[in-house]
Amino acid sequence: MVMEISRSTPETAGNVIRCKAAICRNPGEPLTIEEIEVDPPKAWEVRIKIICTSLCHTDVTFWKLNAGPGAVFPRIFGHEAVGVVESVGEHVEEFVEGDMVVPVFLPNCGECRDCESEKSNACSVFGQKRSPDMPRDETSRFKDMNGEVLHHFLWVSSFTEYTVVDVTHAVKINPDFPVDKACLLSCGVSTGVGAAWKVAAVEEGSTVAIFGLGAVGLAVAEGARLRGALKIIGIDLNSEKFEIGKQFGVTDFVNPATCGEKQVNEVIKELTNGGADYCFECIGMASVMQEAIRSSREGWGKTVILGVERFGSQLTVSPHELLRGKTVAGSFFGGLKPKSDIPLLAQKYLDKELSLDEFITNELSFQEINKAFELLEEGKSLRCIIWMDR
Amino acid sequence: MVMEISRSTPETAGNVIRCKAAICRNPGEPLTIEEIEVDPPKAWEVRIKIICTSLCHTDVTFWKLNAGPGAVFPRIFGHEAVGVVESVGEHVEEFVEGDMVVPVFLPNCGECRDCESEKSNACSVFGQKRSPDMPRDETSRFKDMNGEVLHHFLWVSSFTEYTVVDVTHAVKINPDFPVDKACLLSCGVSTGVGAAWKVAAVEEGSTVAIFGLGAVGLAVAEGARLRGALKIIGIDLNSEKFEIGKQFGVTDFVNPATCGEKQVNEVIKELTNGGADYCFECIGMASVMQEAIRSSREGWGKTVILGVERFGSQLTVSPHELLRGKTVAGSFFGGLKPKSDIPLLAQKYLDKELSLDEFITNELSFQEINKAFELLEEGKSLRCIIWMDR
Ligand SMILES: NC(=O)c1ccc[n+]([C@@H]2O[C@H](COP(=O)([O-])OP(=O)(O)OC[C@H]3O[C@@H](n4cnc5c(N)ncnc54)[C@H](O)[C@@H]3O)[C@@H](O)[C@H]2O)c1
Ligand SMILES: NC(=O)c1ccc[n+]([C@@H]2O[C@H](COP(=O)([O-])OP(=O)(O)OC[C@H]3O[C@@H](n4cnc5c(N)ncnc54)[C@H](O)[C@@H]3O)[C@@H](O)[C@H]2O)c1
Ligand SMILES: [Zn+2]
Ligand SMILES: [Zn+2]
Ligand SMILES: [Zn+2]
Ligand SMILES: [Zn+2]
Repeated sequence: MVMEISRSTPETAGNVIRCKAAICRNPGEPLTIEEIEVDPPKAWEVRIKIICTSLCHTDVTFWKLNAGPGAVFPRIFGHEAVGVVESVGEHVEEFVEGDMVVPVFLPNCGECRDCESEKSNACSVFGQKRSPDMPRDETSRFKDMNGEVLHHFLWVSSFTEYTVVDVTHAVKINPDFPVDKACLLSCGVSTGVGAAWKVAAVEEGSTVAIFGLGAVGLAVAEGARLRGALKIIGIDLNSEKFEIGKQFGVTDFVNPATCGEKQVNEVIKELTNGGADYCFECIGMASVMQEAIRSSREGWGKTVILGVERFGSQLTVSPHELLRGKTVAGSFFGGLKPKSDIPLLAQKYLDKELSLDEFITNELSFQEINKAFELLEEGKSLRCIIWMDR
Repeated sequence: MVMEISRSTPETAGNVIRCKAAICRNPGEPLTIEEIEVDPPKAWEVRIKIICTSLCHTDVTFWKLNAGPGAVFPRIFGHEAVGVVESVGEHVEEFVEGDMVVPVFLPNCGECRDCESEKSNACSVFGQKRSPDMPRDETSRFKDMNGEVLHHFLWVSSFTEYTVVDVTHAVKINPDFPVDKACLLSCGVSTGVGAAWKVAAVEEGSTVAIFGLGAVGLAVAEGARLRGALKIIGIDLNSEKFEIGKQFGVTDFVNPATCGEKQVNEVIKELTNGGADYCFECIGMASVMQEAIRSSREGWGKTVILGVERFGSQLTVSPHELLRGKTVAGSFFGGLKPKSDIPLLAQKYLDKELSLDEFITNELSFQEINKAFELLEEGKSLRCIIWMDR
């Protein structure tokens, strides 16, 4: 398939744009690249020309979902990306045409009690929206060529040449910053680093157990390593993750499939002399969350849940397991505030205080987008950069 | 029944003491006051002449338990008390005969990694003992007159004129301190105050929801009030607790039985504009723990679990409930370290910075001990002081 990319011109502003998008019509089916129409941004919205995007496991989870309120089709997935503002709607002052921006699934209005607090990143004005589409009017900006509405995903929808997002879901970034690294900061990597730095506040000399060595888990490792963690144990069913994990500071590996009679928590308790100081669930399975809690140390062990449960299962834990001083905390985006913290992480990359390059294991053209799903599912990629113009 | 109390004399040291104890032979049966034999303290142990004791709900929970490893009979219950050291075993340097001491269920060796850490109160050397009896040799110091072993409870067993505890389970207290107030500091009240101050670190102006207005819950209220909490919501099925709650700073009341169609978490979200900053479970029911988590605020809401689950039920929570920044922490003894923090709380009482008197709602003689169970179960007492020599 030959892709024609509509270029942003002054004339596009205010008009519907026709461009290519990868559409998911039914759960689990390969995306189809089709022509779509993208409405102009309404008030407090920006239309973004996507430069590149990447695949996070949360896309895969919702792509497969075939029941419940989260299963909304047809839909345009994608929520890790970087792009350039093509045009802005009424009242938009934060962005102008040509700005480089990272769209983000987590809103940050900057004005509510949560956005103003040091303790929260859960914007209380925009964070409780339940509509899959635009947060203010709950309608979509996408249509296919038959006029059928295409739904948004996580208020980003980046698997399209053009998307529309609310101003609260975009972060301006320095135009000199390498775009593929900016794309990583859009979700998974920021989440992992933030979880280690902000939610857990990993301390020097501590022990860390990371369940799931995808980009999120390895970003936790990178964050923990930079904070001086002594032992960083990676737990994964895919032993290939153990080699790559070393680059991110993982010091010990546990494959649950080869633990024999022992439970994973027993192995971790042995490796840490009683349990890890900090445990992170970066897979999205309630049973693993339970094991993570068990693996944490009595007295001060903290388990941070980052994984988005894949099957909607409930987490079951014995209250007695918690009573001797254990803590469990859930977090979106690693406790970071997109608008202020993404630029800080970008700066740390430029200052060589944070590695990002190693997370990019694959690159594909937009046409090959389904291949990115295969690579992630087969455990062959951390983040695959999908270039819109290749 | 007329009670003869064996007095501590120099001659008792090193010898078996015969005295009265309240024995529980079968789950849920009234205690019987019988004569027993109390062995002298072994190395690192102290024998204590109990002055007064009180009943905590944890006694009631284990008294009723008729299955599982916690159901151990015949047994001497009681773990809130104060007494005088009658004699000490070999190697004991911290205590001498005549010292006033508060025995505590939570060990504090003072030397392990946990005891030395600011972050923990879960002594890692003595805190993992699973034997119901003495921690070092896992045997009992009690026998009935037929020679049958009577088991200890929580390493304290205070429903007896004399008990033996490990040095790690006793805290020296100023002999001028009023004994009934010292007794309160032995478990429930310290737990509640500590949970508000140390585990949650309640902040000025914050909203607090307390599930269960027994001594533990009202001690949380007292702690939160002293920290300047703006709104302290008490949740209890017993509306009589609402009057007494006011004395401890409870500002709002919710009776789950009269919420009608609404769930308790919905009522609390309305009262707090979205959820309480801090929730405390002080009942011991997994279903209430779940409701407490639901009642906590997204962004930074913290739920502290103090209740000891009465039926061994599992806590079930949706991982999605946690992801938007909620935290759940379990705690024994409110995160306090017995040896250093009980004397601090005692000093705060003397300095009139902490109320204790109001927790004492009833007083009974040792012979009337079963009445204390009735009063607690009927919701007619917070703490009932049981005097050994009356
Ligand atoms: N909380 C947030 O803000 C946030 C942000 C991004 C991603 N996520 C979630 O984080 C999780 C990880 O995302 P990712 O993109 O890194 O995923 P990924 O697919 O790249 O990595 C998951 C890893 O877990 C391993 N794994 C799967 N099942 C396992 C099991 N039972 N035991 C051990 N290892 C197992 C896989 O081999 C893989 O290495 C997902 O649930 C995703 O939805 C959450
Ligand atoms: N974590 C610790 O270190 C620690 C220390 C002491 C006590 N505890 C536990 O704390 C809990 C409270 O102890 P306490 O001595 O204050 O008990 P208590 O019996 O005096 O108080 C419990 C209160 O909960 C209320 N209640 C019971 N079921 C309820 C329900 N379903 N909904 C609303 N209210 C309900 C009762 O009316 C009562 O007022 C117990 O589980 C006890 O085992 C834990
Ligand atoms: Zn993501
Ligand atoms: Zn906000
Ligand atoms: Zn108690
Ligand atoms: Zn210790």
